[in-house]
Amino acid sequence: MSAPRVDGRVERGNRTRQSVLDRTVGIASVEGLEALSVGRLAAELGLSKSGVFALFGSKEELQLATVREAGRIFTERVIRPLAADPAGVLRVWRLCEGWLEYSRGRVFPGGCFFYEVIAEFDARSGPVHDAVVRAQRDWSAHVERTVADARDAGELHAGVDVPQLAFELVALMETANGVAVLHGEETAYRRARVGIAARLRAVAVDPARVPQVP
Amino acid sequence: MSAPRVDGRVERGNRTRQSVLDRTVGIASVEGLEALSVGRLAAELGLSKSGVFALFGSKEELQLATVREAGRIFTERVIRPLAADPAGVLRVWRLCEGWLEYSRGRVFPGGCFFYEVIAEFDARSGPVHDAVVRAQRDWSAHVERTVADARDAGELHAGVDVPQLAFELVALMETANGVAVLHGEETAYRRARVGIAARLRAVAVDPARVPQVP
Repeated sequence: MSAPRVDGRVERGNRTRQSVLDRTVGIASVEGLEALSVGRLAAELGLSKSGVFALFGSKEELQLATVREAGRIFTERVIRPLAADPAGVLRVWRLCEGWLEYSRGRVFPGGCFFYEVIAEFDARSGPVHDAVVRAQRDWSAHVERTVADARDAGELHAGVDVPQLAFELVALMETANGVAVLHGEETAYRRARVGIAARLRAVAVDPARVPQVP
Repeated sequence: MSAPRVDGRVERGNRTRQSVLDRTVGIASVEGLEALSVGRLAAELGLSKSGVFALFGSKEELQLATVREAGRIFTERVIRPLAADPAGVLRVWRLCEGWLEYSRGRVFPGGCFFYEVIAEFDARSGPVHDAVVRAQRDWSAHVERTVADARDAGELHAGVDVPQLAFELVALMETANGVAVLHGEETAYRRARVGIAARLRAVAVDPARVPQVP
């Protein structure tokens, strides 16, 4: 009879862990990862401090788990929906649109989780900085790969500068997030889409494949 | 004999105030405005806590004075050097170049001061948020005005979408700062310059006026 009891405990621990992370990704997206404290989370979630501590061990572990959880949600919302789409310029466009929707729809209450924590940890060092850097590299690499796939599928001119284009697309997306969250206005998302459409049309073999921005 | 003594005190107070602000803009550019504390500054600068407190009154006042000081330095480094330049596409280019140099040269140790504190305060409310929003609006407005002046001087096509172009230029600059500070690499500055040059050439009446990026 001991196995089921252990399973029950593990399951309870997992549920508690998830409820803590549901809260920390939200807090960190608004206030940053330094705002996470075991005491505050215990109080807000009606848990014991020792219980939260037992699950995460340290503030740094809590921050790292929060970065991983945000990465999981990001992948679920932005990357996975396009997994079955064929390579091409439309897939690049949809990836950018999906990202802008992720920011605009406030999947995280403070806008893009990574925009917030990158600014917080960019000039520091340590494991949290490294995790944030890795997440940003993974995203840039994914945009680059999606652009390269579109070129390899014959939908972008062969001579397209892939890292340059990816950099420009990411710049438009991230700035839209920053401006929209700061000023509470949505014009920035339209400007990003207009810019992204122009960049893609300039390098597309068939520019008509890039949707018009209404 | 009392006037000179008062002047001496005022001058001493101003010097102390300036030495505090020299330190706070640096700290805030790396760690954010929340990292400013009267106790820490007093300890680091060898001042009394009550002395620092007397000069700034509260942590919020210290944060607001720090935002103003960063704005003053920014104006001095990025805006003022171009004050005498004639309106035109080259002035837009030089403004962007000056901004990238301001970021690359680490005028603030954490890169662009405002990039850091905007991410920190974007989703909050209060006087510090408002000051940061104002600083960002002032900068965007300055870029827009510089672009509009170039158009009015006949150097950009009359139909150029000024806010759209300004948004795209700012996006390239800010993302270069973000990526360069995060990854400690300089490629991003070159990518920004390539993108800015391409944007300006696309709307310049005489594209040859836009310098080649080496």
